[in-house]
Order: sequence, then structure tokens, then C-alpha cells
Amino acid sequence: MAHPLPAAALDQLFCSARTPNDWTDEPVGEDTLRALYDLFKWGPTSANASPARFVWVRSEEGKTRLSALAMDANRPKILAAPVTVIIGHDLDFPDTMPKLFPARGEMMQQYFKQPGVAEATAMRNGTLQGAYLIVAARALGLDCGPMSGFDNAAVDKEFFPGTRIQSNFICCLGHGKPESVWPRNPRLTFEEAGRFA
Amino acid sequence: MAHPLPAAALDQLFCSARTPNDWTDEPVGEDTLRALYDLFKWGPTSANASPARFVWVRSEEGKTRLSALAMDANRPKILAAPVTVIIGHDLDFPDTMPKLFPARGEMMQQYFKQPGVAEATAMRNGTLQGAYLIVAARALGLDCGPMSGFDNAAVDKEFFPGTRIQSNFICCLGHGKPESVWPRNPRLTFEEAGRFA
Repeated sequence: MAHPLPAAALDQLFCSARTPNDWTDEPVGEDTLRALYDLFKWGPTSANASPARFVWVRSEEGKTRLSALAMDANRPKILAAPVTVIIGHDLDFPDTMPKLFPARGEMMQQYFKQPGVAEATAMRNGTLQGAYLIVAARALGLDCGPMSGFDNAAVDKEFFPGTRIQSNFICCLGHGKPESVWPRNPRLTFEEAGRFA
Repeated sequence: MAHPLPAAALDQLFCSARTPNDWTDEPVGEDTLRALYDLFKWGPTSANASPARFVWVRSEEGKTRLSALAMDANRPKILAAPVTVIIGHDLDFPDTMPKLFPARGEMMQQYFKQPGVAEATAMRNGTLQGAYLIVAARALGLDCGPMSGFDNAAVDKEFFPGTRIQSNFICCLGHGKPESVWPRNPRLTFEEAGRFA
């Protein structure tokens, strides 16, 4: 049976982790991004559908293209961060089910192709994968700056042309400047957010 | 600067963690569920909107009501697990913005109340919080069994009556029977799931 991780690990993942608004020059290497993928890819999704798709924007040209499609407040963050990953989800993910669920791939493929099912499944599970990415990046010692403030349709056209991949959110990755973190906002109490039944 | 967590911690969170299909009798105490909430509540959401809402189903009566609304294959899991949490999101979450983002609460409240914005924001960020819950539970040594196979509309009526909270997914929490884990399915490669730009 597993035991709770040490307090320092819980702090790094959740309690002390913060969203920076500016980034140091320290680079994030390709090896780190591949290690990150190889970590969060194991997170659970419905029938292992794994619908999320990623564009790891790290070139100056890529940052310029992405930042031009973001809200004003988010542009300098994208330009400053060593990497900003676009998290999308592929509405054609049912095509991958024979690979991802060999024992029942054909059946799952048919199930997910029902009207409306692919869309809801892609959004729900692609978002779960985006959250796994955030927590896994923190587990590897990176800071994360997730953002929704950008033109989704324009990003889809620019970064996912000729596909049925839809952008969901974007996330800066790197090492944040501590002084760029805002004061922490409160959270709902256990009782405000839920109840026992 | 943070360093990568030890390999054993990464294993517990992602690489070795698996979804059990049956559960031991070992209980999960209220203190553990409160510690779990106090951990994952810190995960980032858009403007700290924190739209997820939770029903922690642990009574025999609650399990019976929930299992009756689940797919056949999921009923015995809900009845066997010590806790199954219903993760929903509140379309009225903008009302909480003055508490959750004191510096700009009124402004964010108006922003999120625009048509379509509350729905997309609640689904995206409520799902992120559901994933934080999963990874945080593993960090505390619990196993997770997330499931989408249930009647969402019926669960909303049964567990969230008189609210605008919509169920998203449910997740068994406890200690899984190791022999109930299925063989691990493959994942997409880095290149199949994304690219650099």
C-alpha cells in the first residue's frame, strides 16, 4: 500500500506551487519536455482514450505567432517563457482506440463515434490530461502558467490546420520569477465546495 | 528552484499508479478526505474560479442511490469502494468571484456571466480540479477509480437538486485490490501526441 508523500513533495505539487507572471531565462531542454510527456501520459482517461494533443511552442517564431493570438496581458508571458504548450484535443481520437485499447478497440471506436460522445469525451479527458501535465511539470521542478486568454479559433487555424484538433488552454513552462507571483487568493472551504452523502 | 521529486514519488503519482476495479474494505476517514480537499484545492484555475463541487458518497444509502444511476459495470465498484466522489461544476460559480478574487471580484463576476463563458469555464476548470483531486489522492497514498459511465442528468437531479451544478465524472477512492487491475494499455508516443513549434 502506498503512503502519503513527504510534506515537501505535497508543497511542491500543490500547497506552495504558484503561478508566475514572468519568467527567467533558464531554458527547458527537449529532454525535460520528453520526460514530462513520459510522466503525465500515464494519467487515467476514459478507456485510455488520451485525446489531448500538444504543440510545444519554443522557437522565437512560434512564440511570436502564438503571442499575437493571445490577450494583451498574456503576450509578454508567452514571449518570456522558454516554452508555452498548447493543449488541444482531437475530435478524431476514436481512430486511435485500436492502438490505445487493443482488447476492445473496435468496440470503443464505434462507441466514441456516436454523435456528441466524441466532443464531450475529448473535452473532459483532454482537460484531465492538461491538469496531469501541470502537476507533472511541478513534480519535475518546473513552474506552470496556465492561461485561457487567447483566441481559440485563431489558434486552431494557426497551429492545428487540416485537423479536428481544438485548442483548450495554453500553459507557460519554465522557471518563474518569484517576485512576479500575485498574492494568493482564498479557496472555498470544504463545506462551501461540497458535502457528504 | 524546485528539483524533480524522487523516482518513487513520480511512480506513485503517475508511472506505477493504476486504476483498480475492486476495492478492499479498508476505510477512508473523514480526516483523509478533508486533507485531500485541502491539498488539491490549491491547484490553479482561471482567475481562481474554482467551479468544481463535490459530493463525497460514503454512506450505504448514498452508494445505493449513486450505483443505481451508473452503468452496470460500474455499480459493484461504487458499492465496494469506501468513498465515491461526484465531481460536478457550478454554472453559478461567478457568484463566488468576490470571495475568490477579492481584488477584481466584481469585474470577473461580470466577465464570467457573459453567455457561454460560464459554461465553458466551469467545464474546463471543474475538470482540471477533478484531475488535481486524482493526483492529490495518489499523493496521499489512495487509489483512484475515475468513471464516466453513469446517467449525468439523473445524478444531477438526485444529488444536485435546485442548483445549477452539473455532474462531470465520478471517482472511487480507497485501496484497490491489486489483482483487479487490468493489463496496462499503451500510450501515444511524444510524436503521435504532439510536435514542437
